[in-house]
Amino acid sequence: MKIGILGTGRIAKQLGQRWAETGYHLYFGSRTPQKAQELAISISQSARGGSYEEAAAYGDIILLAFPWSAAKDILTQCGNPEGKTVIDCINPLGDDWKSLSFGFTSSAAEEIAKLLPSAHVVKAFNTISDKVIKNGPQFNAQPSTAFYCGDDEDAKKQVAKLISDIGFEPIDCGELKNARYLEPMACLFINIACQGLGSDIAFKLLQRQND
Amino acid sequence: MKIGILGTGRIAKQLGQRWAETGYHLYFGSRTPQKAQELAISISQSARGGSYEEAAAYGDIILLAFPWSAAKDILTQCGNPEGKTVIDCINPLGDDWKSLSFGFTSSAAEEIAKLLPSAHVVKAFNTISDKVIKNGPQFNAQPSTAFYCGDDEDAKKQVAKLISDIGFEPIDCGELKNARYLEPMACLFINIACQGLGSDIAFKLLQRQND
Repeated sequence: MKIGILGTGRIAKQLGQRWAETGYHLYFGSRTPQKAQELAISISQSARGGSYEEAAAYGDIILLAFPWSAAKDILTQCGNPEGKTVIDCINPLGDDWKSLSFGFTSSAAEEIAKLLPSAHVVKAFNTISDKVIKNGPQFNAQPSTAFYCGDDEDAKKQVAKLISDIGFEPIDCGELKNARYLEPMACLFINIACQGLGSDIAFKLLQRQND
Repeated sequence: MKIGILGTGRIAKQLGQRWAETGYHLYFGSRTPQKAQELAISISQSARGGSYEEAAAYGDIILLAFPWSAAKDILTQCGNPEGKTVIDCINPLGDDWKSLSFGFTSSAAEEIAKLLPSAHVVKAFNTISDKVIKNGPQFNAQPSTAFYCGDDEDAKKQVAKLISDIGFEPIDCGELKNARYLEPMACLFINIACQGLGSDIAFKLLQRQND
C-alpha cells in the first residue's frame, strides 16, 4: 500500500515514521520539493519526496497534513484523486491556536470533501498529538484511541487498518459530518494540554465488554 | 455539603445515588414535587424532594439536570443563587438527539452563566452516561474521566471533589467557554454509542506520567 503524505510538519513526519516502520511506501509532498525529499531520506530508504501533486498521484491513500489555511491552494494543485481514500487530520484552528476558526454548521473534513468530490474523505488523527505518535500509542499498556469518521465504508476500513497497524485503537465515529465533533475535541485536547499536562496525553474510549 | 438536584431524570437519579452513598445530603427538585419526593425516598432516608425553588435554596451546590428546553423557565423560578456553585451537565441537543441545537459561538454553560450572573457555573458530567454512573466509573481498574471547566477556581475545586468522591477522574479543561468543546464531545459520545457500542462506554484521558 502506497501513501502520499501532503505536508512535512510534525504530524506528517511522525505518522510517516510509523507507517514506514510498518512497511508502507511513502511519498512526501511539499511546496518545496527538496524539503520533502530531505524528510523522506531521514525516514526510510524507500520513502520519496517531491511536489504535492506528485505525492497525491503516488498514493493509493493520501494524508492531508498541512495547515488549514493552505488547503484550498494545495488541493487545487492536486486535481481530484478519483476514488482514492483521503485522510484529513487538519484542525482549522483560529489565530489563538486553541479555538476553531469555524465549525458547528460545517467542518474542515466536510469542506475538503466538497473540494475533492470524487475522493473518499475520512477524518482521523486530528485528536492525537505528534508527541504521542512519537512516544508511542500505549500508555501503561493501554492503547490510546484514534477516532475516525467518514461516509465510505471501504475507505474507513483502510483507515482503521492504518490506525491499528501503528498501535492505536480505531473507533468508528460514524458519518463524515461528525467531524463537527472531532474537530472541537482537538481544541479540548489543546486546552487540557495548556492546563499544565503538556501534549503527551491522549484520549481513550473505555469499553466495559473489553474488561 | 448539601446538594440541590434540579431534575429527576436518569442523570439526576444516578448522580444522586452515588453522592448519597458518599454521604452528601440531597434535595431533589421537580416541576412535580411529588415526583422529586418519591425519587428522594428511593435513594436515601436523608434525601428530600420538593420544588425546583426549594432544591435550589437548599443546596450549597446545585446540579442542573433537566432538558435544555426547560432551562430558562426553571432558572427563572430559582432566582439567582448568589455565590453558589452550579453544575451544568446539560447538552443542548437538537431534535435528532445526536446533534447540538447551537454551539461554536456559545454553549449551554455560557448561556446558563448569563442567566445566573451571581453563581459560579461549572460544566461537568455532560460527557458521561447514566449507565456508566450506574455500573461504575472503573473500566478494568481504570477510572474513566469526568472533564470539567469553569471560570471560578474554588467552584472548580468543589466540583473536582464531587467527581473524585464517586470514583471518576477529574480533568480540568480550563475556562467556562471551553464548554464549546465539551458539549460537542457529548454528541461524539452519542454517535459512537449509536455505532453499536451502546452507552456503557466512557472517555478517559491517558497521561504518560501516570504509568
